[in-house]
Amino acid sequence: MKIISFQNENKMSVGIVEENTVVDVSHEFPDVLSIIKAGSNGLDKIDRILNSNVERKPLKIESLLSPIPKLERNVMCVGWNYLEHFNERFRQDIDLPAKPTVFTKATESVAGPYEGIPFPENFTEKFDYEAELAVVIGRKGKNILEEEASDYIFGYMCANDLSARDVQQAHGGQWFMGKSMDKSCPMGPWLVTKDEIEDVQNLEVTCKVNGQTVQSSNTNLMMFSVNRIIAELSKGMTLLPGDIILTGTPSGIGAKRNPPLFLRAGDVIEVAISGIGSIKNGIVTVDESIKLEV
Amino acid sequence: MKIISFQNENKMSVGIVEENTVVDVSHEFPDVLSIIKAGSNGLDKIDRILNSNVERKPLKIESLLSPIPKLERNVMCVGWNYLEHFNERFRQDIDLPAKPTVFTKATESVAGPYEGIPFPENFTEKFDYEAELAVVIGRKGKNILEEEASDYIFGYMCANDLSARDVQQAHGGQWFMGKSMDKSCPMGPWLVTKDEIEDVQNLEVTCKVNGQTVQSSNTNLMMFSVNRIIAELSKGMTLLPGDIILTGTPSGIGAKRNPPLFLRAGDVIEVAISGIGSIKNGIVTVDESIKLEV
Repeated sequence: MKIISFQNENKMSVGIVEENTVVDVSHEFPDVLSIIKAGSNGLDKIDRILNSNVERKPLKIESLLSPIPKLERNVMCVGWNYLEHFNERFRQDIDLPAKPTVFTKATESVAGPYEGIPFPENFTEKFDYEAELAVVIGRKGKNILEEEASDYIFGYMCANDLSARDVQQAHGGQWFMGKSMDKSCPMGPWLVTKDEIEDVQNLEVTCKVNGQTVQSSNTNLMMFSVNRIIAELSKGMTLLPGDIILTGTPSGIGAKRNPPLFLRAGDVIEVAISGIGSIKNGIVTVDESIKLEV
Repeated sequence: MKIISFQNENKMSVGIVEENTVVDVSHEFPDVLSIIKAGSNGLDKIDRILNSNVERKPLKIESLLSPIPKLERNVMCVGWNYLEHFNERFRQDIDLPAKPTVFTKATESVAGPYEGIPFPENFTEKFDYEAELAVVIGRKGKNILEEEASDYIFGYMCANDLSARDVQQAHGGQWFMGKSMDKSCPMGPWLVTKDEIEDVQNLEVTCKVNGQTVQSSNTNLMMFSVNRIIAELSKGMTLLPGDIILTGTPSGIGAKRNPPLFLRAGDVIEVAISGIGSIKNGIVTVDESIKLEV
């Protein structure tokens, strides 16, 4: 099931995508979080709606919002989780880490799958992309066992963990400030329920900047699997329904290219993950917008 | 004005403390965030309630909850912000940082001012205290000028940024995991509106463990003032009403004592800030509680 938040005239609506059509389920669910929090009952109710003689409207890709437009807490993110990305940063003879690197992005970093991203003027000279698989948690849990972690997953999205490399380093080595710019975390295009993904550790992850492929990898190269990440994150801290976890980016980020490739207004970044879909965001100057072919 | 959240029979209530009495304002404000979001109108309305012939009930200190019990995003925290604490970590001949260190604590870290804190079993061997002044933001703002930052402050609280030192270091140098244990951020005892604090950069901050003073400093030793912190945090990211910013801890943390002093079940930690009040939390084993004299 592909669940969307979308703009329907002046209000936010919730829908289910089937091929090129949408079934509006806003009369039952005011937002996507309410579907997640309803658990299997929520999905059962949607199944009944889909199986009734309900109206299908054409999917308007430009109306899509981030699947969870209003977060209840920061996005959690894993750093250096792909072996080749780890190696592009560190000497190759050092030990691999025993624990994942984890930081957060502020709630206002949420952006839609085709939304223009304002270039953070006077804030960064090194604005960079990171294609990532986003995992959405479906159930509250603590001390979750790795072998039971998939029970706690609701679904998946594409995400772009836009990063200000200079700011990331300037705050005592803690990354939060360089990761939390407004609209620096476009997500979507929909929230795909986990049953649609046969093997989350075998998905192609790619990123293109202005049509040129800059990242191309597979989730089978993660050092910490999705299940292991959930187990590690839930050790001291309770995970909650609706939590979003970004699982790290593969090699090929702009800062490590030769010459470096940093984003500027007018650039278009597309993140695609096999089995999920793709998101495509233009970098815009403040108060301007960029026309996208979607 | 001292604003509290408190447990009143089985429901959360909102009140105003005057000496040893409480005026319940829950009929007008369902939670403290709704007061903050109402801005000066909210405080004016409360003034009218207080000036009417309203019932005063005795303040029951044991009923106090964290002033903002349900956060809308992670607590933001500044690290190494007191010069002597910076010096207890680094060589004294290095340059002082140009930007504050900023990280976050997960929303579930919220704990009440007298609540028992579960010792994070099987998670840390180095559980430590950090007395801190917490600032609560009152107005939405971005690119806030340092000289206008005080306009964006709603008020202040005491906070204890409980930290797992071993976990803090184990996740690629990013502190989020070692700072985000459930109930690792007791706050309170009330939210003091800014008009009650004459000079926020001249407040005594102390911490006692089992009655012994372990931290004793003054906010005049902050390297980044409260106003500067607000200006820096709002550069890339919009600050929101209800945001909580912890402004750093002075020297004397357990990890830097000789011998080190790490917390164990049964320990009681008291954080006090002049002009605000104090919070006092016992460390408890899971499913046990500790009787406090408050």
